[in-house]
Formats: sequence, C-alpha cells, structure tokens
Amino acid sequence: MKASELAERLGGTLEGEDVDLVACGGLEEARAGDLSFCKDPKHVQLVQATKASAVLLPPDWDRGAPCAIIRVADPNHACMAAARIFAPPEPARAPGVHPTAIVDPSVKVGEGVHIGPYTVVEKGTVLGDGAVIEAQVWIGEGCTIGARTHIYPQVTLREGTKVGADCIFHCGVRLGGDGYGFNNGRREDGSVYIEKIPQLGIVEIGDGVEIGSNTTIDRARIGRTYIGPMTKIDNLVQIGHNVKVKGYSGLIAQSGVAGSTEIGYGCLIWAQAGISGHIKIADGVQVGPQAGVPQSLDGSLKYVIGAPAMSMKDLAAITLAPKMVAKLKAEIKALKAEIEKLNGKGA
Amino acid sequence: MKASELAERLGGTLEGEDVDLVACGGLEEARAGDLSFCKDPKHVQLVQATKASAVLLPPDWDRGAPCAIIRVADPNHACMAAARIFAPPEPARAPGVHPTAIVDPSVKVGEGVHIGPYTVVEKGTVLGDGAVIEAQVWIGEGCTIGARTHIYPQVTLREGTKVGADCIFHCGVRLGGDGYGFNNGRREDGSVYIEKIPQLGIVEIGDGVEIGSNTTIDRARIGRTYIGPMTKIDNLVQIGHNVKVKGYSGLIAQSGVAGSTEIGYGCLIWAQAGISGHIKIADGVQVGPQAGVPQSLDGSLKYVIGAPAMSMKDLAAITLAPKMVAKLKAEIKALKAEIEKLNGKGA
Amino acid sequence: MKASELAERLGGTLEGEDVDLVACGGLEEARAGDLSFCKDPKHVQLVQATKASAVLLPPDWDRGAPCAIIRVADPNHACMAAARIFAPPEPARAPGVHPTAIVDPSVKVGEGVHIGPYTVVEKGTVLGDGAVIEAQVWIGEGCTIGARTHIYPQVTLREGTKVGADCIFHCGVRLGGDGYGFNNGRREDGSVYIEKIPQLGIVEIGDGVEIGSNTTIDRARIGRTYIGPMTKIDNLVQIGHNVKVKGYSGLIAQSGVAGSTEIGYGCLIWAQAGISGHIKIADGVQVGPQAGVPQSLDGSLKYVIGAPAMSMKDLAAITLAPKMVAKLKAEIKALKAEIEKLNGKGA
Repeated sequence: MKASELAERLGGTLEGEDVDLVACGGLEEARAGDLSFCKDPKHVQLVQATKASAVLLPPDWDRGAPCAIIRVADPNHACMAAARIFAPPEPARAPGVHPTAIVDPSVKVGEGVHIGPYTVVEKGTVLGDGAVIEAQVWIGEGCTIGARTHIYPQVTLREGTKVGADCIFHCGVRLGGDGYGFNNGRREDGSVYIEKIPQLGIVEIGDGVEIGSNTTIDRARIGRTYIGPMTKIDNLVQIGHNVKVKGYSGLIAQSGVAGSTEIGYGCLIWAQAGISGHIKIADGVQVGPQAGVPQSLDGSLKYVIGAPAMSMKDLAAITLAPKMVAKLKAEIKALKAEIEKLNGKGA
Repeated sequence: MKASELAERLGGTLEGEDVDLVACGGLEEARAGDLSFCKDPKHVQLVQATKASAVLLPPDWDRGAPCAIIRVADPNHACMAAARIFAPPEPARAPGVHPTAIVDPSVKVGEGVHIGPYTVVEKGTVLGDGAVIEAQVWIGEGCTIGARTHIYPQVTLREGTKVGADCIFHCGVRLGGDGYGFNNGRREDGSVYIEKIPQLGIVEIGDGVEIGSNTTIDRARIGRTYIGPMTKIDNLVQIGHNVKVKGYSGLIAQSGVAGSTEIGYGCLIWAQAGISGHIKIADGVQVGPQAGVPQSLDGSLKYVIGAPAMSMKDLAAITLAPKMVAKLKAEIKALKAEIEKLNGKGA
Repeated sequence: MKASELAERLGGTLEGEDVDLVACGGLEEARAGDLSFCKDPKHVQLVQATKASAVLLPPDWDRGAPCAIIRVADPNHACMAAARIFAPPEPARAPGVHPTAIVDPSVKVGEGVHIGPYTVVEKGTVLGDGAVIEAQVWIGEGCTIGARTHIYPQVTLREGTKVGADCIFHCGVRLGGDGYGFNNGRREDGSVYIEKIPQLGIVEIGDGVEIGSNTTIDRARIGRTYIGPMTKIDNLVQIGHNVKVKGYSGLIAQSGVAGSTEIGYGCLIWAQAGISGHIKIADGVQVGPQAGVPQSLDGSLKYVIGAPAMSMKDLAAITLAPKMVAKLKAEIKALKAEIEKLNGKGA
C-alpha cells in the first residue's frame, strides 16, 4: 500500500516520499517496506537508525527521520490500526460442507457450520451452530463440538470427546489419545509382562478454551480429563489422563501435567514446567519456567521456580551457595591464623 | 443409563432415586450424572460431600450418602465394570479399504486389513494381517507394518520404516524424519557453509510397541534407529537418529534421547528428561523427571535425578547447601567470639 | 544384496560365504544381514564379537573375522558407499499435480512443481519452481513458497506465511499458528475476563532453512516472526510470536524460544533449552541442553548451562557446594578442638 493511502486511512499526514508499505515492525527490526512508530523523543536515536521505509510520529516531533514520516495524533494506536490493514485477510469460512468432506449421515450439523475439504466426521457426532471445522480434520464417533468453536486443519479428536462453545484448536492438536498406563511385573515362570490398562474415559473441554499447535491431551482412564472454561493452552503442551484444570488458567508452551493432577482456578504454568501426577495446585499459583513440581502446592507460595520447585529466595540461595562457601572459607582461614598466634603465645 | 438398569447389570441393588448416570468419577471430582464409589468407612466425609448422583457402596455401609446408593459386594470392581459400560463404544474398523484411500497397486495388503478414508500408502509397502490403518494416514514407499498393528489417524511413516506386530501408534506420530545432522565450517574464502548430512538409514520398531501422540522418531544416518519390543513411549517424545532402545522400556511424555544413544532393557525415562547422544544407559536404570544425563550410566545408580543427573541424596545435598552454610556461619561466629575472649585473657 | 555383488560395486574382494546383506551397522549394533566395518587393528575384539554377516576390512588386516570379509582400500568410505546402496530409494516426486489435490485456480504454480494427493492449497498462494509439496499438506491463503522447497506430508502453513528457497519442512510442522497472547484482568463488577489479542502478523522463513517434525512456529502479533537463512531447527521445537532468528543458527530438539526474543547469527541452542521472551542472544553464543536463559546474553560467555543459565564453572561450583561445605565443617570441628585446648591451657 502506498504511504499516502495509508496516511489517509489512519487520519494522518505524509511527509516525504510516497513509498510502498507492506508490514509493521519495531524501530530496530523494521526493514525496507516496513512502517514503524515512535512517540517518545527519548528514542530519537532508534528513529535515526531505523531501516523502516516510513515511521509514525506525533505532531510535535521535531527531530526528523531517515525515511518518510506519517504524522498522527497517537503513533501507537495508529500502528495497531495499520497492523490490521496489513494483516493477511482472515480466510472466509462460509457455511457449508465441502463436497470432499466425509460426514456420517448420523452427524448432527448445526446452523451455519463450515466443514472443509478432506475432513472426516464419524457417526453420532454433534456440531454446534456456527462451528468451523477446517480442512483435513478428523473427528471420531460420538463427539460434541460447541457453537462457534473453530478447529484449524489437521486436528484429531478421538471418540467421545466433548468440546464447549467458542473454543479455538490450532493445527495438530490431539485430543483423546490413550493415557499412558501399563501394568507390569513377572509371571510365575519369571518372564516379564507389560499389559495395557484400558483407557475408558474421555476428554472434556469447557467453553472459551484455546489450545495451541501440536498440543496433546489424553483421555481419562475412567471418567474425564477436564479442561475448564477460558483455559488458554499454548503449543506442544502435554496433559495426562484424568488431569483436571478447573478453569481460567494458562499453560505455556512445552509444559506438562502428569496424570490425575488438579490445577486450580487462575493458575499460570510457565513454559517447559513439569507437574507430577496425583497432586493439587491451589488456585492462583504460578509455576515458573522449567520448574518441576513434585508435590501439591497449597497456595502459601504464589510463585515457585526450580526443581524441585521452591521460592525464588530459596533458589537464589542455592545459586549463591558457592559464594557463601568461599566467604566462610576465608573466615576459617583467618581464625586458624588467630589460633596459631594464640598457640604461639601460650607456648 | 438409569441407575436401576446399571444396578442390575452390576449385580447390585439400588437405594434412592432412579437417577440418570453418564460417567464414573472419584468422590471429589464427581458431578451431577456421575457414579462414584467407596469401600472404606474412613472416607465417610468424602462420601457425605460428594456431588455424584449415585455411589457404589459395600453391603455393610451404614453411614448413608447424599445421593442414590448402589450396593455391591466390591465397589472398586463394580466401578471398573461401570466404566466399561459408560466408555464410548470402540469404533468398528471392519476389514476393507475405503474407496478414497490411495493404495499403490504394488502394496501387499494382508487378510482383514482396514484402511480408512484419505489414507495414502505408497509403492512396495507390506501391511500385515489384521492391521488397522485409520483415516488420513500417510505411509511412504517400502514400509512394513506387522500383523494387528493399529495406526490412528494422521500418522506419517517415511519410506523404509519397519514396524512389528501388535503395535499401537497414536495420532500425529512421525517416524522416519531425517535425523539432525549437518557439517559446517568456513570455506577458504572465509564464507560459512552448513551442509546437510544425508540420512540414509531407517526406523525399525519391534513387536508390541506403543507410541503416543505427536512423538517423533528420526531415521538413522546409516543403519537403523531401533525401538525394541514392548517399549512404551508416551506423547511428544523425541528419539534421535541411530538411537537403540533394547526393549521393555518406558519413555514418558516430553522426554528426549539424542542421537546414537543406547537405552538398555527395562529402563524407565520419566517425563521431560533428556539423555545426551552417544552414551549408554544400563538395563533397568530409571532416569527421573527433568533429569539431564550427560554421560553413560552403568547401573551402579538405579535412579538418577537432576542435571547433571545424580543420586537423590546428592541432589538433596545441593538443595540443603544453603541451610548447611547458614549453620556453619553461626558456628564460625561462635568460634570468633571464643578467640576474642582468649585474646582478651592472653593480653 | 549378495555380498559378492556388493563387493564388486565397492571395488573390493569377498572372502568367505556369499551372504545376503540388507543394511550397514556399527560392529556392536550389527546383526545378521548387516555389513559392518573396521580399519583400526585396536578394535580387533569388536570385530571378533560382531554379529554382522560381513565386515569391510583393509587389505592388511590379518586378524580374521567371525563372518564374511570384504577387503577394500578404505573401509569407512566403503561403508558410506554401501549405506547409499542400501538406503531406501528416494521416492520420485515427479512434476505434476495429483488429481485429488485441491489447488485454488488463483494459485501460481511454478515450473516442475509436485503436489501430492489430498493436499489443499488456498487462494493467492505462490509455489516457486521445482517446489515439492507432498501428500496431505495444507497451505492457507496468500502464502509464498520458494523454489525447490520440499514440504513433507501433513505440514500446515497458515495464511500469509512466506517461505524462502531450498527449505525442507518435515512431517507435522506447524507454521503461523496464533501466538499466545491474552489480556486479562477484572471488570468493574469484579468478574474476571481473558481477552484474545489478535495475532495480525505472519511467519517468514529465509532460504535454506530446515525444520524438523512437529515443530511449531507462531505468527507475529504484528509484523513477522522471522527465521533467517540456513537456520536448522530440529523436532518438537517451539518458536513464539515475533521471535527473530538472524540466521545460520541451530535449534536442537524440544528447545523453546519465547516471544519477541532475538537469536543472533551462528548460535546453537541445545536440546530442551528454554529462552525467555524479549531478550537478545548475541551472535555465536551456545545455550547448553536444558539451560534456562532469563536474560540477554551479550556474548561475554560463549557457552551457558543450567537454570538460570551460567558458565560451566559456576554450575560446577553449585554442584560441588555440598563437598565444600563438608570440608569446611571438618575444619571448623578441628578449630573447635584447638580452642578447647587453649581454653584448657588458659584455665
């Protein structure tokens, strides 16, 4: 888009060359074709060094810029508006079933549902009004998908999965795989056996849940693995069988929760953290990045970090232990010298 | 299902309202529509607080319940039986090739094989008797799939992959991707090069192996990446090129094994653990959650934890170091006081 | 292949039985049907214990072998050549669009492009000359794929993704999923809200980038998530929104980079490492396996390890702290004894 057209749409005025603009970017990251922004005179050096083709600046900016300038009342706000203009158009997913989709005749398809190419929906499944099921999705038997839930391509939902309304599942999400459960031991003749424990339960997802790409949530052994309403799960997260996430919580990328654990309301599990099985995390607790939680957290600590998980202060103490040790070593050396002196005197 | 019908199927007797029941659940997790169970009088408070609609109780239970009661001889056993009744029906995967499956004419399809919709099987592949290949699977050229192996939707097997009998691969499993291998350095003119090392080997999977959702196992650089019989792999696990897992081992979710490492028989690698490349883990060793193993483990430690991996005792000592330091500091202070006294006396 | 035929193709001579050979393998891993190799007499015991069916040995080897021998000038080199002979044939991906592929009429398909079965390419996308898009791939609207880029089955590219030339994406790669971004707080009435922040940017991938199986890279909030040229990413890696990887770097399996972080040129991020958001890693820095990096690294340390990330020396000091503490404890005990003696004397 021409800078002049963009300036007009943003209610600003263009100064300098009428360049072509394709994207937004911060002052440091921007490159040719980018629009950047600055409102604070203290960043003048970043403005002077930017490789952007144009920069949004406030009316009173008097330091110039090495590129075109679009003057607007509020550069931050204008940049967000520009980002919406530059954004790839959201693909239309009009109501209707693509002719290549294989939808069992017993499936109840709500009003205004979109089903994309090469998607397979097995018998007895119910798709709520306005649900969008994109291309190459697989939904097993007897699932329920709530109204307006949006499922991106190449998601799989095993039989019996229940999903609320207004959920978003990104590409590669796997719901309802068998939980990890085996009995093993030795038979009377000494030979080893490893026996699969049937995974008879389901996965149930509340309303307003978002699940990131390639995240996996296992079906319960018995009953349900439950993800409560408004929970937001990032990419590559693992949720074991019979886990219960009460709701309004966040689980960041590559974190994992082992079987039968309960996560309270309003928790935040940071990236790559791991939570053991059969424990409870109290409402509102945050588990820091890469933390390992072996035991229940009752909420007396609001934030834990490290493995085994502890307070920031305790982790800092471990990190500082070598310095403390060195200090004590010096003190002991000094004491030794004193004692030698005393021994000398006493002799 | 009506509680009365369920009671009859479980050989028990119903007391109270003939409620509708849909699932099993523990006393604490259960909600309206659930059947719970209790056999031990010491859990009487959990029974009194349960939100289940019915509870399985033993014949001699005399503490009542806040919901319908189904009396049975063995509540635990009856609950397992009820779970099987409530479980989503296992989808039938009748023998036959779906008309939309694209199976190369050269593929050898065994007796009773099921191939689902939109699955692609390339030339020269062999599918053993009774194999179930579900929807949207992709199997490359020259693969071998053993008898009764069950492949869930959206699994991919690159060319040459060999799979034993009675395996289960969950959705999103990726076998045979190129291993991570590059040569890099500087050319005579100073420019940097990064060159792909051809990954010429395959993945070979023994009998009875289960692999969880979205797990990835790379093809060997030369020869085979090998997963021995009865190994059970959880979700989101990464196995590098030329790894050898001898067999009868478990690898829990999000763990990773780097290239050319050997895992002995009967090992257990816990969640999020990482094992370096080119080392050996002796038979029967357990690697704890989030442990990082930089060197071979000869079995003298049966369980390791921490990073670098060590004994539980050694990890505890590191965690306790700050307390020990504080104690020593106090002792040094006391000694100082003593010495000052002595100096005073000596003066 | 018969050992005699292989010997001829390798320019060597066969001694012993004309066995059938199917694969290469190291002396210890090899089994019946395998060809192994040895050039160094110091490994004579491994040769004597090998289960290979044949072994490549140099002309002057006089220690025999428990299997057939193929004598060649350079056993290592001959083994690589044999590996190429044994390797599964690289599947032909001839130019052409499979009749089941759904390619929007507006898509610009370059010369010699291959599009496999059940692949979907949406409107406005551009596929460069010689690109290979395998089976069951999904490419959204307005994407650009560079010349000769090879996309394996079941990859998904969300709308607007830009990919350079000569890239390789392995099965299950997810590009352009929404970044993890939510505003939350409490409304005036005390109720909690969690609001999705629109993710308006794209993913842009430079030339020569390889991305491993099931790796996920999120689209930018605004602007681009950028992976620079020749970057090599392993399996199950997570890259957050607005991350910038300058180029010529490696990210090993299961590592993760949080939003808006910049990774310099020539960095190496080892397996399971985690890098926080909004920081910068200087050119050439290596982040060790499982390391957790909370702050920018300016390059004064070339290698960091541990969490929080530190030098090898600092991590070793923490690990050794318990030993140091025990030593100090002994010294303090000795000092106490000395002081007691002095007190005795002084009395």
